[in-house]
Amino acid sequence: MKLKIKQKVLMEHLNYVIKGISNKNLIPILNCIKFDLVKEGLYLMSTDNEIAIKTFIDAKEIDEIDELGDMVVSGKYIYDIVRKLSNEIINLEEIMSSQLLITTNTSSFKLNCNNVSDFPKLDLEFSKNPLVINQQAFKTSINQTIFATSTQESRPVLTGINFKIRENKLECTATDSYRLARKEITLDSFVDQDINIIVPAKNLLEVTRLLNSEEDNLEVHIFTNKIIFNFNSLIIMSRLINDSYPDTNKLIPTEFLVNIKVNLNNFYNAIDRASLLTSEEEKNIIKLESKGDYLLISSNIPEIGTVEERVELETKIDENVKISFSSKYMMDAIKIFNSDEIEIKYNGEIKPIIITDGQSDTLLQLILPIRTY
Amino acid sequence: MKLKIKQKVLMEHLNYVIKGISNKNLIPILNCIKFDLVKEGLYLMSTDNEIAIKTFIDAKEIDEIDELGDMVVSGKYIYDIVRKLSNEIINLEEIMSSQLLITTNTSSFKLNCNNVSDFPKLDLEFSKNPLVINQQAFKTSINQTIFATSTQESRPVLTGINFKIRENKLECTATDSYRLARKEITLDSFVDQDINIIVPAKNLLEVTRLLNSEEDNLEVHIFTNKIIFNFNSLIIMSRLINDSYPDTNKLIPTEFLVNIKVNLNNFYNAIDRASLLTSEEEKNIIKLESKGDYLLISSNIPEIGTVEERVELETKIDENVKISFSSKYMMDAIKIFNSDEIEIKYNGEIKPIIITDGQSDTLLQLILPIRTY
Repeated sequence: MKLKIKQKVLMEHLNYVIKGISNKNLIPILNCIKFDLVKEGLYLMSTDNEIAIKTFIDAKEIDEIDELGDMVVSGKYIYDIVRKLSNEIINLEEIMSSQLLITTNTSSFKLNCNNVSDFPKLDLEFSKNPLVINQQAFKTSINQTIFATSTQESRPVLTGINFKIRENKLECTATDSYRLARKEITLDSFVDQDINIIVPAKNLLEVTRLLNSEEDNLEVHIFTNKIIFNFNSLIIMSRLINDSYPDTNKLIPTEFLVNIKVNLNNFYNAIDRASLLTSEEEKNIIKLESKGDYLLISSNIPEIGTVEERVELETKIDENVKISFSSKYMMDAIKIFNSDEIEIKYNGEIKPIIITDGQSDTLLQLILPIRTY
Repeated sequence: MKLKIKQKVLMEHLNYVIKGISNKNLIPILNCIKFDLVKEGLYLMSTDNEIAIKTFIDAKEIDEIDELGDMVVSGKYIYDIVRKLSNEIINLEEIMSSQLLITTNTSSFKLNCNNVSDFPKLDLEFSKNPLVINQQAFKTSINQTIFATSTQESRPVLTGINFKIRENKLECTATDSYRLARKEITLDSFVDQDINIIVPAKNLLEVTRLLNSEEDNLEVHIFTNKIIFNFNSLIIMSRLINDSYPDTNKLIPTEFLVNIKVNLNNFYNAIDRASLLTSEEEKNIIKLESKGDYLLISSNIPEIGTVEERVELETKIDENVKISFSSKYMMDAIKIFNSDEIEIKYNGEIKPIIITDGQSDTLLQLILPIRTY
């Protein structure tokens, strides 16, 4: 393998594949990036067996291709070296004793390489009928749900986002069993068969970090044990969580005692301030009470002090219902809405609290109240 | 105590005094801020017994002074509460059972207060003949030396910066015994008596963070056991380290075998790249060799690879001298120069390496080489 390439071009693509490498991995080959130089251009690949990322630099973007070939080098080192080189032409060349020689006018690095044959074989073949989704819409859907996934490995199924596809609807659901986030988007075409899969949240996070176009689409190829995302010059594969997702529909109440509309910012800021006098050990509990034409939000830490916040209501409500919940969960849930107003619906402390933008049900947030009264 | 004040005004001054509070302090009163409302305005004070900060808000900046008095409240809570209140008028009022009531149109906080009499008595009287120094010049001097202080509490004397004042010169010296930084500034007036004190680095860091004027001066009042800085509306007191500072002058060689001038950025970037192939456990050692018309900087980690960097010299040198040093210390030392070029002088691996800007000796950096050849 021998080529000349601009630092800026190579760096852009190293920035993609470095996200497929976990520095904590104890298996050295999984900390590596594979370079594969063919006539058409340069492929870079990384994988930690949970996620795989493959990117392609077209030959037109490469200054000179002198000798085809493939090499496997430490991802961390090649990334840091190229990052610190100035924006000029970099020579990359395989030399004796399987080393990668990286040179510029003033710098010369020799990096020991791993065996190409030890690098995992990646099956990144596409399916015949991928879903086609607008990048921005997909990214927003993930961002609006991912925070509600569980980080506890004790219930792996909850560490992923559930994708349910039926006809032309994709429903993304995340829950950690204390709260739930659900977003529905409409696809351009219909699927033949219903799909119900669980994608690890941490892999979806990497996908959304790499989505950078507002207009372009991404292709989603779904298989029984993996999902492949294809956009720009990138192919990202994630394994699926092989389990069945809990039926979350039955958790969502359909009738409510209280139904209020509030200004999102006023409500968020009031909760944010009230949460100053809560303790994390006690789940940041705050109380909410409807008082006719305003909401009263309150909290206290006995040894420190007390707080009361008022949020004006646009429509007076008659029911005086008290409810308590985690201020952290409420803030997580409401900050992902883009609307000026939100609708909060609840039945006291027995059943879940539901938050929507009051206009549609395509984005729904659910929080379990905490019984204190 | 009862007053009305704009959030923005109070926040600016809370931002000052919060720096006098260490959250790790186990003595509750040292985590507090004292409010003292007098006819002329509002004083805010904090201290952790190592540093004390006092700021003053003139009555003209206060919307209403209704009742004079003083109160002591938790610094963390009052700071966070005021920070999260919107930019409007805040009412502060002492209420029954020694609580501070903080209200706006929509928010109402009650904070339990501490006993005013438990708050440390601060003697912040000024001396008769303070040093007067330009704020920017003082801040630069501290920034150019503070990184060389030791963070190890085993030799407390090295955790401070040595201020030596003689005639109209202030010399700031910092060393952790592996490297040394020294900066001299010329004062506007002469001192009657030589001064030689050690000021804790962490307190100087807080002082420099609060210095924000390029033109204005600060007053420095020096006592046997404390130093007081006065600038803008602020008074900051730091205790001194009560010990004698090592005589560092004898460490600085006066004759050199090699004397080279290099472009600062080129040299810095070459070392930065070479340090990629060093290990922190081995003090990030890199090698430097003079090769006639260029410098060769090299390093390696056997299992990873090797690096060689060239830095062009403007003037050819005859001596081929090899030397090794910590790349981290060298980068720390050279990045604080403002010049395009730096001068590096050394005698091989026996004696210290000296770095200056080649123009004057008012800023000098010293690094001990590491014997490897």
